Amino acid sequence: MVNVAILGFGTVGSGTAEVIEENSKSIALNAGEEIKIKYILDVKEFPGSPFEKLVIRDFSVVENDPEVSIVVETIGGVSAAYEYTKRALLAGKSVVTSNKELVASHGYELLQIACEKNVNYFFEASVGGGIPIIRPINECLAANKIHEIFGILNGTSNYILTKMITAHTDFYESLREAQDLGYAERNPSADIEGYDAARKICILADLCFGKNVSPEDISVRGITDVTLNDVEYARRVACKIKLLGRAFRLSDGRVCAYVAPHLIGKTSLLSNVDGVMNGIVVHGNAIGECMFYGPGAGKRPTASAVVADIIDAVKHREKRKPINWNKAEEGYVASADEVPMRWYVRTGSGLETIGKAFGNLRLISYPGEYPGAGPGEYAFLTEEMTGREGKKRLSDTGVRSLFPVLD
Amino acid sequence: MVNVAILGFGTVGSGTAEVIEENSKSIALNAGEEIKIKYILDVKEFPGSPFEKLVIRDFSVVENDPEVSIVVETIGGVSAAYEYTKRALLAGKSVVTSNKELVASHGYELLQIACEKNVNYFFEASVGGGIPIIRPINECLAANKIHEIFGILNGTSNYILTKMITAHTDFYESLREAQDLGYAERNPSADIEGYDAARKICILADLCFGKNVSPEDISVRGITDVTLNDVEYARRVACKIKLLGRAFRLSDGRVCAYVAPHLIGKTSLLSNVDGVMNGIVVHGNAIGECMFYGPGAGKRPTASAVVADIIDAVKHREKRKPINWNKAEEGYVASADEVPMRWYVRTGSGLETIGKAFGNLRLISYPGEYPGAGPGEYAFLTEEMTGREGKKRLSDTGVRSLFPVLD
Repeated sequence: MVNVAILGFGTVGSGTAEVIEENSKSIALNAGEEIKIKYILDVKEFPGSPFEKLVIRDFSVVENDPEVSIVVETIGGVSAAYEYTKRALLAGKSVVTSNKELVASHGYELLQIACEKNVNYFFEASVGGGIPIIRPINECLAANKIHEIFGILNGTSNYILTKMITAHTDFYESLREAQDLGYAERNPSADIEGYDAARKICILADLCFGKNVSPEDISVRGITDVTLNDVEYARRVACKIKLLGRAFRLSDGRVCAYVAPHLIGKTSLLSNVDGVMNGIVVHGNAIGECMFYGPGAGKRPTASAVVADIIDAVKHREKRKPINWNKAEEGYVASADEVPMRWYVRTGSGLETIGKAFGNLRLISYPGEYPGAGPGEYAFLTEEMTGREGKKRLSDTGVRSLFPVLD
Repeated sequence: MVNVAILGFGTVGSGTAEVIEENSKSIALNAGEEIKIKYILDVKEFPGSPFEKLVIRDFSVVENDPEVSIVVETIGGVSAAYEYTKRALLAGKSVVTSNKELVASHGYELLQIACEKNVNYFFEASVGGGIPIIRPINECLAANKIHEIFGILNGTSNYILTKMITAHTDFYESLREAQDLGYAERNPSADIEGYDAARKICILADLCFGKNVSPEDISVRGITDVTLNDVEYARRVACKIKLLGRAFRLSDGRVCAYVAPHLIGKTSLLSNVDGVMNGIVVHGNAIGECMFYGPGAGKRPTASAVVADIIDAVKHREKRKPINWNKAEEGYVASADEVPMRWYVRTGSGLETIGKAFGNLRLISYPGEYPGAGPGEYAFLTEEMTGREGKKRLSDTGVRSLFPVLD
């Protein structure tokens, strides 16, 4: 029997306890041993909960109990979570987490400690909620050199964009609805401004390309500027607007990662990834393209990934699983501005100004023609050019929207 | 260093050798050891191939060489492949295969031998080509009780159906084109009659539900009867016709599996899985729904899965990975005819006959209205009923097509 301590009894922590109890038999079969929750660490009490008696407040109880071999960190954030994770690893316990913020910012360091102490630090639930993606990258696609990975990594912003596309409610109304339904937090900035997706694409880049990419090193743009005009113009060129995190290897060995709203073609699989669902596309030199789809958040889906990690930690107590995540050299992360892409532009400038700046362009809208458009508004697609070049040309054209096109 | 022998130097075998050579450094990093191809067993010679000197004809060389710890079986079929796999396992070597026919028919027995000899028998490439699906089921979704799994499991038939839908060429013309492009074999029966998909859904059912389901125990229907009329009628109700393998658990613990053309809604993700691509949907009681998508066949994609298995076999030489696949009791597999579904029906009978047989139905077409329709042809959707009930009611209505609807 393996004893587990769960740190933080919020949504994911309680979902984890629930799934462990509910599927105990099949989980024991898959792990080869019974899994028992010994402690739940939380500052609150949970009267009436079936787990009430397991709740403790002092982490050192977990830290000093040699019977506890696996610690599940579902606190979130970086303060207590970081401290407890470090102490648990140093005490020789494997740690499983759903905490993307902590993994994105301190994953490299925590994996180093895990390696020194010969224990595991697993974080399948940190990206894509329940979707199997970390283990597929590390194991199932281990024969590949991965070129590129991109996807819809944030369910809240995808829900809002889906609403804008299907119900034609504007950003703020769609956000309010997401909040009412519990899909967005009262302070939704991490989701709608792209920081959550940035953490996740960094974790994916770390694993796909083997070296550390920090969220603060990449360009991040959220969905707060996306308007119903943009949605309409995208529709005209058979595209949908989706917030993507994207990372790829350049031919010189550097890696580029960024988060931005994209126009993606309606026949692409990601364009049907709607609502709170997530979808992640991977390109490898043996497999070609593959995609992973599923619920990117939520109590039980996230618990599905957490418990899978617990099972794997049980199976690999004696022989830890190495994860290929190394320190990056100076200059490893290339700016997204250096990479050629096609662009969607919405602007208040006149046709002459745009024509002079871009020459070859594909016009999507004409002023006055669409009721929602502002006065004198044009939208168009450019040829392939770097973001730097595009911004230079746009500098005096009154840009309202500027998104990459991926079709 | 780990020595590997590849049995069969056809498409998958040569792709495997190619990927091992090309990505040798990253593969060694992931496996923790260098992987070396020591022998390639084939009846042919390969003058000019970089692997020419490794080719042997006598399996006992592999069998008796203690340096070879992993054998890759990419021969296909069940005669030599079965014999060599058995002998390799009995000689204490792990075996990796892409051979769905062998795994579907003898997987349970071969896993028993692997267990006795404390070696691994891995078959990620047997379902979905390069798509990670076997390992995700066994490991990433190990916290779940899986309810249901279904998907587009055969690239050849999906290519043909996609052609019928997009280019409006009929079944035979689409098949001929698939043959010209190398997507279909000269004798395409295993693909177009559903037997290949049947093997794959059985392997998935074996793993998802833990007990053996044989291809000969399930109902299999291919795409040879699908007409352009069916394609058109499906389009009218916002559906596409796709060949699905499907398996699910009944409330009494039995499992139902079958292969058949289905009408699926155009907003479902599988409806955008086109051409030779495969897509597999899994429903679990923790994760909810997730999907895996990618190339279902082909030299390098399949090699991607084979080499991932080799890497895993290297990492688990000391401690084998158990796979939960047990003997089934009598009566474990339920007939698909017992399960309630909605049906699409195309028939030559008159409205009165149909109305009498079905009462509530949704008519899709009227005789004479569509030029492609035969004289007096009707197509309609039924309410939910078992296949048995449907067939009884249809017994005297001149049925031309009868497919389940999944939306």
